[in-house]
Amino acid sequence: MTSGTISAGIVGASGFAGALLAEMLLHHADVRLCAVSSASLAGRPVRETLPRLRTDLQFCGNDEVAGVDVAFVCLPHGLSATTVKRLLDDGARVVDLSADFRLPADVYAEWYGEHPCPELLPVVYGLPELHRDAVAEASLVANPGCYPTAALLALEPLRGFGLLDVVVDAKSGVSGAGKAPSEATHFCTVDSDLVAYGLGGHRHYPEIAAGIGAGAGGPSLTFVPHLGPWQRGIVETIYVRAAEAPGEEALRACYERAYAHERFVEIADGPPHLQDVVGTNYCRIFPTVDRRSGRVVVVSVIDNLIKGASGQAIQNMNVMFGRDEGRGLI
Amino acid sequence: MTSGTISAGIVGASGFAGALLAEMLLHHADVRLCAVSSASLAGRPVRETLPRLRTDLQFCGNDEVAGVDVAFVCLPHGLSATTVKRLLDDGARVVDLSADFRLPADVYAEWYGEHPCPELLPVVYGLPELHRDAVAEASLVANPGCYPTAALLALEPLRGFGLLDVVVDAKSGVSGAGKAPSEATHFCTVDSDLVAYGLGGHRHYPEIAAGIGAGAGGPSLTFVPHLGPWQRGIVETIYVRAAEAPGEEALRACYERAYAHERFVEIADGPPHLQDVVGTNYCRIFPTVDRRSGRVVVVSVIDNLIKGASGQAIQNMNVMFGRDEGRGLI
Amino acid sequence: MTSGTISAGIVGASGFAGALLAEMLLHHADVRLCAVSSASLAGRPVRETLPRLRTDLQFCGNDEVAGVDVAFVCLPHGLSATTVKRLLDDGARVVDLSADFRLPADVYAEWYGEHPCPELLPVVYGLPELHRDAVAEASLVANPGCYPTAALLALEPLRGFGLLDVVVDAKSGVSGAGKAPSEATHFCTVDSDLVAYGLGGHRHYPEIAAGIGAGAGGPSLTFVPHLGPWQRGIVETIYVRAAEAPGEEALRACYERAYAHERFVEIADGPPHLQDVVGTNYCRIFPTVDRRSGRVVVVSVIDNLIKGASGQAIQNMNVMFGRDEGRGLI
Amino acid sequence: MTSGTISAGIVGASGFAGALLAEMLLHHADVRLCAVSSASLAGRPVRETLPRLRTDLQFCGNDEVAGVDVAFVCLPHGLSATTVKRLLDDGARVVDLSADFRLPADVYAEWYGEHPCPELLPVVYGLPELHRDAVAEASLVANPGCYPTAALLALEPLRGFGLLDVVVDAKSGVSGAGKAPSEATHFCTVDSDLVAYGLGGHRHYPEIAAGIGAGAGGPSLTFVPHLGPWQRGIVETIYVRAAEAPGEEALRACYERAYAHERFVEIADGPPHLQDVVGTNYCRIFPTVDRRSGRVVVVSVIDNLIKGASGQAIQNMNVMFGRDEGRGLI
Repeated sequence: MTSGTISAGIVGASGFAGALLAEMLLHHADVRLCAVSSASLAGRPVRETLPRLRTDLQFCGNDEVAGVDVAFVCLPHGLSATTVKRLLDDGARVVDLSADFRLPADVYAEWYGEHPCPELLPVVYGLPELHRDAVAEASLVANPGCYPTAALLALEPLRGFGLLDVVVDAKSGVSGAGKAPSEATHFCTVDSDLVAYGLGGHRHYPEIAAGIGAGAGGPSLTFVPHLGPWQRGIVETIYVRAAEAPGEEALRACYERAYAHERFVEIADGPPHLQDVVGTNYCRIFPTVDRRSGRVVVVSVIDNLIKGASGQAIQNMNVMFGRDEGRGLI
Repeated sequence: MTSGTISAGIVGASGFAGALLAEMLLHHADVRLCAVSSASLAGRPVRETLPRLRTDLQFCGNDEVAGVDVAFVCLPHGLSATTVKRLLDDGARVVDLSADFRLPADVYAEWYGEHPCPELLPVVYGLPELHRDAVAEASLVANPGCYPTAALLALEPLRGFGLLDVVVDAKSGVSGAGKAPSEATHFCTVDSDLVAYGLGGHRHYPEIAAGIGAGAGGPSLTFVPHLGPWQRGIVETIYVRAAEAPGEEALRACYERAYAHERFVEIADGPPHLQDVVGTNYCRIFPTVDRRSGRVVVVSVIDNLIKGASGQAIQNMNVMFGRDEGRGLI
Repeated sequence: MTSGTISAGIVGASGFAGALLAEMLLHHADVRLCAVSSASLAGRPVRETLPRLRTDLQFCGNDEVAGVDVAFVCLPHGLSATTVKRLLDDGARVVDLSADFRLPADVYAEWYGEHPCPELLPVVYGLPELHRDAVAEASLVANPGCYPTAALLALEPLRGFGLLDVVVDAKSGVSGAGKAPSEATHFCTVDSDLVAYGLGGHRHYPEIAAGIGAGAGGPSLTFVPHLGPWQRGIVETIYVRAAEAPGEEALRACYERAYAHERFVEIADGPPHLQDVVGTNYCRIFPTVDRRSGRVVVVSVIDNLIKGASGQAIQNMNVMFGRDEGRGLI
Repeated sequence: MTSGTISAGIVGASGFAGALLAEMLLHHADVRLCAVSSASLAGRPVRETLPRLRTDLQFCGNDEVAGVDVAFVCLPHGLSATTVKRLLDDGARVVDLSADFRLPADVYAEWYGEHPCPELLPVVYGLPELHRDAVAEASLVANPGCYPTAALLALEPLRGFGLLDVVVDAKSGVSGAGKAPSEATHFCTVDSDLVAYGLGGHRHYPEIAAGIGAGAGGPSLTFVPHLGPWQRGIVETIYVRAAEAPGEEALRACYERAYAHERFVEIADGPPHLQDVVGTNYCRIFPTVDRRSGRVVVVSVIDNLIKGASGQAIQNMNVMFGRDEGRGLI
């Protein structure tokens, strides 16, 4: 189905990622958005709570999304898997934005509890720059987490130098913490502040670890996320010791070669700004050598809701349906 | 002079640190603020440009600050040294907030150019928690930089474990970039963004390196500062490999012991918030072990304009003049 | 009791105003803070949830605040009144920060429901600049609302010109909406936005109306508050038609005369900034004539948590106990 | 020329409005952006300073924009007029985003100085909702100011009730103040603050006044803009006394009728948020009656850079070239 209109549905469209995905799909020329669901808002006009969605659609119940070519599932982990199964049985191709299909069952169990649908594993990890061919063939794609997206795109070109030791210091805007009101997301907690969290272990750790082969025999990895006073965007500053220490020019050449044909990955001439990527599907990367320590330092930025969620989901859909990969994306 | 009123002057009071220092001294019960200077505003009422300074003082010229017990010099590096010399000759005890007296002449030359007054070196490095006795005796104290203050207080207790490898990922508010308007400090550049800078080498690197003995034979050090969308406060997330890897409890005990008698250093139970310290002279530190990598991770926060500048300057003055170290500070 | 230490208690210290009041009282040289209560946190160390409160106090229950010279009540309206009564019976002088004693019983009923303690009414309205003598004598003072404080200080000098028509367009930071997490206080709702609210009627309307005698026979009043992306501070832009239209100079002279002897009210030379007053007890006012329409426009700014709540409460306490009115305030 | 590709040029593309216009035109399916100029950056690749503009274009000099179907002029007032003349002579149709052609020559002279090209006056005022037919025919369109756009769309439906007295209290993000660094746009000035300005007379006053016929014989008008801590978006709260005071239902019906067929004007059910319109070309309006005073209160929000500048310019272009009015806009 490499031409014609793709009918699409979103399960769980009231959160940040689902709502933005709906907004983007409404502007995607190849897509007809047929159904958007929300357990709590079923029956209500979408515009009522999401005025940016200039549509006459009403929210339906999660089980009512059916008969579509592609379904995007934006439910919390644990709940997502069974819905994904139903949609696959219904004949849809599925992009799952939850964490349910990103990890092997044993690793999943360690971080989230027993896997609800191990029979569907393994699933293609939907980072198109790294797994494009598999995505094209897949019925089900696991859309990567936001932190891993920025980290793995930044680290991939370095793997050839032999990663030994990796520190990912990540700073995210508040949309990454979700829409539920809490003390942690209250304006007066977040504003004029920046706070580290997840120091005992964050659920995106195993995703990054899997992507670089960290752990037994592989590189050591430390990942510390922070929450900062902005809405959208992740900045990751990544400190790497490699077996072979590249010089500045070789390092840069390596990145430029790696992403020469990638539309959504840019190698910057200096530390990238969030405003260069927010609102877009781009990942912007600045690699450099810290000459005093010999370490490689890489700064990687994305919009966590776009390249880190909804945009990447559309990119995956475009690949799955044989469309121009940038269709409906900027 | 351990009692009675201390007469004080500030050279260079129109910048962020100088203006806040003036505001704090106006509320210090032991101090009479006699003179505040500004090259560009000399002759103008202070309130006109700094309405928070509810005083009838006028700005004087930089050379007109004289005859005071203590002088605070808040001039740019290079300009500061000769003014310091004049004030010492005038009989004042001096706290210099510039970088002019923080480094040995050869290291200074590498980062700033030839030292203007090498004959005054070496000068006491005014981190009272580490050098209290020397500060008490000093005529001239070099007030530490903001990033080094947060880093050195965080790293000092770890030195006994044998530092091998240190990464300081620092995030600062915009007041650290100074009051001069530029593209980098324009609201529309800073807001909703966070950007790494100084990757080729930041002038606070040698101060941190000196404090932990980094370089030949010592630990390796990488320091990357970032500018974020808030006004005041620094968060440093510090990643350390030590010769001896402490366990969680030993690590915590070590920090609590090190600062048990320090009024302005707190060991937190979790990642500290800027709002716990902004507006105060406190440094708040959370040390923990990343059990997956064995690394120590320390988060350290201060108000860059207070503990990182004006408050520490007052703390130094209090020590120099034999006053309660917390006088005039909160 | 015009000298000596005042023993103080706070009922309801876990909200923004109560916590800041506690912090300020801990630094007030004439006050010993004996008790801070919180229904939900009773028995817990205060520092645990409020690290800025560097004290060893524990929260007690609301009923356990007793035996103090002065009690500050920071409970929600409706709950406050009975606690106030108990504390008065206990011999304390009381400053009530709720709305319970700011309005006559009939007006209160219209906006909040039946008054819980009408026998205590009327109570002195604690705007010291307007009612200082009554405050000095009072056992119970009703601390004004934040919006009315800024509005009434701005409008008082104009009353002599015969107010006809008043529009108060107010913009408040988020601390004014309280500490409870909600969609309205979520960072992603507030950031980069500003929203009008309370257009059908805000509870501070009757307080402002009472202060200027609006309604039957008096001036017409429209009050529209807005919530903006900052934590602390209110800006009110007030549009006035008066029976007698003053010229620019007469207008300014009138304001300067009205507040010539007031420590905490300043007449500015231009539109005031929040940063001129945030963290202080000052109200800063800029009156001007819009020559095209003949209207008077007055801009008035305060820190809603200080002059609009905790600072004014301390100012009232200072007046009640015969202390320097600015004691413990900046 | 109601089909086919429109060749376009932008004179002055380095400011906020020009850069965003370029970004939007690059995504407009009917447009080929041929030339973007900047006096200071001529010869440099556009991506170098504007990384969001993913194009290989270089900036050219202002005089080098020629031979295009449509030219957008984003120069400062005074400079714009002569460039507009040159482009018209060159055969282009022109949308001028400066203030040069928005006012009659005599009013222009009062606010800006002598008009540089009075022979071109009068020019169609490009608010398509009010002047669509004239825009369609025009060679030159004066793109309205940001404040007037939000105000005039909000006030137009009320004119039938007989406007007597209008107060426009406007709050704008910082992009409205332009890209030039200054103390007023420094992050530390703007953040956590909101400040009134232009109280002596703002240049958008005569535009609003002209639009509602204020002045001699017409309604009285007061306009006070404020600068707040966000980048994009204007909120205007407008207070109106009309000869005939409409009830709530009649008022709402009047607005819904007025804009029933307008794609980019929405009548909201409650006070609109900036986030409902930022990034889009929509104006969102909430009209209500303040029953205590009888006044009408209207809240109107737009993205100042889109509906208030670049988006409206594209909307005008679409109308001028007979395209779907929403083409290239969201």
